Amino acid sequence: MKITFLQVGKTHFDFVESGVAVFEKRLKHYCRFDAPFILLPSKLKSLPADELKEAESAMILKKINPQDIVILLDEKGSRFTSVAFANFLQKQFLHHSHLVFIVGGAFGFHKSIYERANHQLSLSDMTFSHQLIRLVFMEQLYRAFTIIKGEPYHNE
Amino acid sequence: MKITFLQVGKTHFDFVESGVAVFEKRLKHYCRFDAPFILLPSKLKSLPADELKEAESAMILKKINPQDIVILLDEKGSRFTSVAFANFLQKQFLHHSHLVFIVGGAFGFHKSIYERANHQLSLSDMTFSHQLIRLVFMEQLYRAFTIIKGEPYHNE
Repeated sequence: MKITFLQVGKTHFDFVESGVAVFEKRLKHYCRFDAPFILLPSKLKSLPADELKEAESAMILKKINPQDIVILLDEKGSRFTSVAFANFLQKQFLHHSHLVFIVGGAFGFHKSIYERANHQLSLSDMTFSHQLIRLVFMEQLYRAFTIIKGEPYHNE
Repeated sequence: MKITFLQVGKTHFDFVESGVAVFEKRLKHYCRFDAPFILLPSKLKSLPADELKEAESAMILKKINPQDIVILLDEKGSRFTSVAFANFLQKQFLHHSHLVFIVGGAFGFHKSIYERANHQLSLSDMTFSHQLIRLVFMEQLYRAFTIIKGEPYHNE
């Protein structure tokens, strides 16, 4: 049971990085987990937005295996309650061993990523920055495992 | 134009505190803003949950003036998109000069707070911890002002 959380672009805020680390440490009690970054070489950063997304897309797709289940964090995705999200996770792991969640960069996803994706998930009606979403998602993932295991949520 | 963000109970995570501080600094460009804590004296902390909420409630109500508009962050509240929330804020400030947002503690709000509240706001279908919600709310408040002013969202 493995979860990969692919993050497009680096984390700008120290508090997001620290928060993600807090939940990453906790998640490792429940599953194999990693959270790699997709970082474009600086020489490509001046590309027009669409070419930039295409270059990112190629890097993302290289990290994904054919049998992986790919879930995009995307405003247009389905919305879940925390309990429904826990059920979704549990159901996925009945049939699949590796889930790859992806949070996009400032410009969103290239169409090839939408084509590869198995699911799209939205965390709120509200728009969160692609930075804060990392933290919010990590908390929900941790919360989902506490729900699955019937454990009290660890809040301190 | 003043916004008060009342936080019941202290912030346990350093990353939440740092993140709130980032957005607090930015918010001060747009309005008068403060974010005081409601902290029960330690001798009261062993009270049963309901008495504890009542004691908190008395402390909260002391901070609120009759003409203030009180908005609870509560799972059962209305959900807004970020743009709808910006519109809501703008509309409130047409008629009122002081909005008080309140995030509850681990046990939620006492009924007297629900009775005093003018509005209830929910940030997501998902349940966030009463800790992370502080950060998510602060980002939405900052985002709302950038929407109202037609400014680009400052992400770095």
